[in-house]
Amino acid sequence: MPDTSFLKQLRSRFIVLDGPDGSGKSTQYRRLAEDAAASGVTVCEVREPGGTQVGEQIRSILLDRSSEMTMRCEMMLYMASRAQLVEQRVIPALKRGELVLADRFISSTLAYQGCAGGIPEADILAVGDVATLRTVPDLVLIFDVDPATAARRTSGVEKKGRKPMPAQGPSLFADRIEQRGNDFQGRVRQGYLDQALKHPGRYAVIDASKGPDEVYERTLEMLRSRLAGR
Amino acid sequence: MPDTSFLKQLRSRFIVLDGPDGSGKSTQYRRLAEDAAASGVTVCEVREPGGTQVGEQIRSILLDRSSEMTMRCEMMLYMASRAQLVEQRVIPALKRGELVLADRFISSTLAYQGCAGGIPEADILAVGDVATLRTVPDLVLIFDVDPATAARRTSGVEKKGRKPMPAQGPSLFADRIEQRGNDFQGRVRQGYLDQALKHPGRYAVIDASKGPDEVYERTLEMLRSRLAGR
Repeated sequence: MPDTSFLKQLRSRFIVLDGPDGSGKSTQYRRLAEDAAASGVTVCEVREPGGTQVGEQIRSILLDRSSEMTMRCEMMLYMASRAQLVEQRVIPALKRGELVLADRFISSTLAYQGCAGGIPEADILAVGDVATLRTVPDLVLIFDVDPATAARRTSGVEKKGRKPMPAQGPSLFADRIEQRGNDFQGRVRQGYLDQALKHPGRYAVIDASKGPDEVYERTLEMLRSRLAGR
Repeated sequence: MPDTSFLKQLRSRFIVLDGPDGSGKSTQYRRLAEDAAASGVTVCEVREPGGTQVGEQIRSILLDRSSEMTMRCEMMLYMASRAQLVEQRVIPALKRGELVLADRFISSTLAYQGCAGGIPEADILAVGDVATLRTVPDLVLIFDVDPATAARRTSGVEKKGRKPMPAQGPSLFADRIEQRGNDFQGRVRQGYLDQALKHPGRYAVIDASKGPDEVYERTLEMLRSRLAGR
């Protein structure tokens, strides 16, 4: 059992766990949220898109395959959901001293609609600044995995040990996004890695091809070295 | 009968009719769309929010009073609907040489969520640039009316002669926005007038307190003087 007592120091911190479907981030997320709560810090769990009543309504539009949707509209809908989430839940939780753990944030938009989808990074950042009231995560953990391994995991071959987030519903990315071009997942991965290269202080890349225990130890190590005691 | 034959010159023009509910803009819109079509130009009619399948789904979220929604999320939802509308309908129609007539556009967001709702103009413009791919109307007609007259009209006292747009549905603004503070409508009006003052070349204010025939003549006059023959 790794030592997780330091997690109680992460009051008023905003941590994002991100990466492609099949990266195992949701498993890591659950474990981290449970250990943090056990250490004594109040955890505010948010996921995107959704996490609020309006956000869930927006999520259902994004999930609806029947309607034609431009990449730009899709991006704006993620941002609308994010705007509600940040103002209604993230900012108040940070003010109350809670640890905010987010499953996806702007980093997802930059990877999927940006690098893979073709919307210029500057456009996403401009909209993101407005949507989030310039609320920037303290740390973005990118769970990096090659597309072949991710696909194998999401197709169920390695799914037995997987604990999805409760009420996660059908995978949005599997639904609307996996239909897209062959190299789309490769560009998504590149989109995540590019962000981490540009912002080494705010991002950390974790090799998520390893087993869940090893990945979790690495996750804790990152949180300890980057955030604890500061 | 006013002479409307010059309307056929308005190919590939993008004209927005805007103003508060009760300004009579929808009556003017219908008449203008009919006369333009009769003059021989193909008219692309769009309304906001909505005008596309996704836009109508977004509209229904905006109409749902039961969910808590921040002003910023509301603004982003209008922009998401607008992004889809511009890319799917407005830009292609302009390329085909049609006259695009829009019932509301960014001018509404600037008045309602901006001046009246408190979101900084710069934030709305930054998001608007991205949402519309910087598609700027050739002319924005503001139908100006004092809040008391507008309220009297929407309450039905003067409603007999009113022809609403088909499939307009319940008034969004009456639904979500009329619940808001007392001077909200006054700030909306000011929001429209401020825009017109700042951009006299792209905006025209029409006194919409007059009767519909007089307002329509003034509308045609504006279109003729600003756009015809250019």
